[in-house]
Amino acid sequence: MEEQTLEHTIALLARTPGVLDALLRGLPEVWTRRNEGEDTWNAFDVVAHLIHTERIDWMPRARIVLQSGENSMFEPFDRLGYQREGHGKSLSQLLDEFACLRQEDLAELHALNLQPEDLVLRGRHPAFGVVTLGQLLATWAAHDLTHLHQLSRVMAHQYREAVGPWSAYLGVLKCAGHSSPA
Amino acid sequence: MEEQTLEHTIALLARTPGVLDALLRGLPEVWTRRNEGEDTWNAFDVVAHLIHTERIDWMPRARIVLQSGENSMFEPFDRLGYQREGHGKSLSQLLDEFACLRQEDLAELHALNLQPEDLVLRGRHPAFGVVTLGQLLATWAAHDLTHLHQLSRVMAHQYREAVGPWSAYLGVLKCAGHSSPA
Repeated sequence: MEEQTLEHTIALLARTPGVLDALLRGLPEVWTRRNEGEDTWNAFDVVAHLIHTERIDWMPRARIVLQSGENSMFEPFDRLGYQREGHGKSLSQLLDEFACLRQEDLAELHALNLQPEDLVLRGRHPAFGVVTLGQLLATWAAHDLTHLHQLSRVMAHQYREAVGPWSAYLGVLKCAGHSSPA
Repeated sequence: MEEQTLEHTIALLARTPGVLDALLRGLPEVWTRRNEGEDTWNAFDVVAHLIHTERIDWMPRARIVLQSGENSMFEPFDRLGYQREGHGKSLSQLLDEFACLRQEDLAELHALNLQPEDLVLRGRHPAFGVVTLGQLLATWAAHDLTHLHQLSRVMAHQYREAVGPWSAYLGVLKCAGHSSPA
């Protein structure tokens, strides 16, 4: 992962709060509060999860790599932590909170002034073992995209019947989802 | 499809230009000009395709249903029409153009003042045969979502290597795509 790629990562990360805001704020609950069936997430849950990962996964793990390298293992991620983040809040509150956290994190990342040689620094993931700082930061951006992918699929699912025979042409309705522990 | 659902459809349709703008405008070309391999689309192509469908598929077909019902078959859709829409233009121009077309189309849809009984009116699709106006309008919204789903997948593909072992956890990287004639 070259320095140039860090710029690309940051460009994507900086846009995600605005994307979610444009898509979800004020949208009827048929789109934001319905999921794909038992034990699946709706759009509200996805935003709550993004807040949770923002608090736990990205800059905290980057700090661990920079401070302790491979000697200190990352905390395992709690997949149900999103429930605490969403409890008693509105979707608008979650969107505000995510935008605020993301802005703070990118300010901290910028202040680190990472150089290409920093991106090969190593940390220890509880499942994967050795990973690099560059991989962690790339995953941060790809994780935004995996949840945008999920959101569009969950939302499209709500119109599965309404589209009638066109369901045959709509790829998003054929996506089986590919969820993982995060 | 009830009247309420038409409101839901319009709420989604009205947001898509802002979503694409927030995601793509000014984004480095690594995200917007790279595809998933030969004969696949990049983000630029997707926006050009959305412009093309806006011109050909949605309100023009709605007008055919309202004017001629099942007697007049929809024109088959030209999947390569997006190439003409994108030719010689910047992504910013395409984003502006899509936003403008969508706004015009929603103004026209609003002016039609469709009632629940209009949504069961029938048209004739070249592949499916009889379809309803309600199905056509629901498909318009789901089509936005299928291309948001595709966009997030195409963009995530650019970081397939960069994320290292995390690719195992990122569902979007396991999505095989589900393209169809549109």
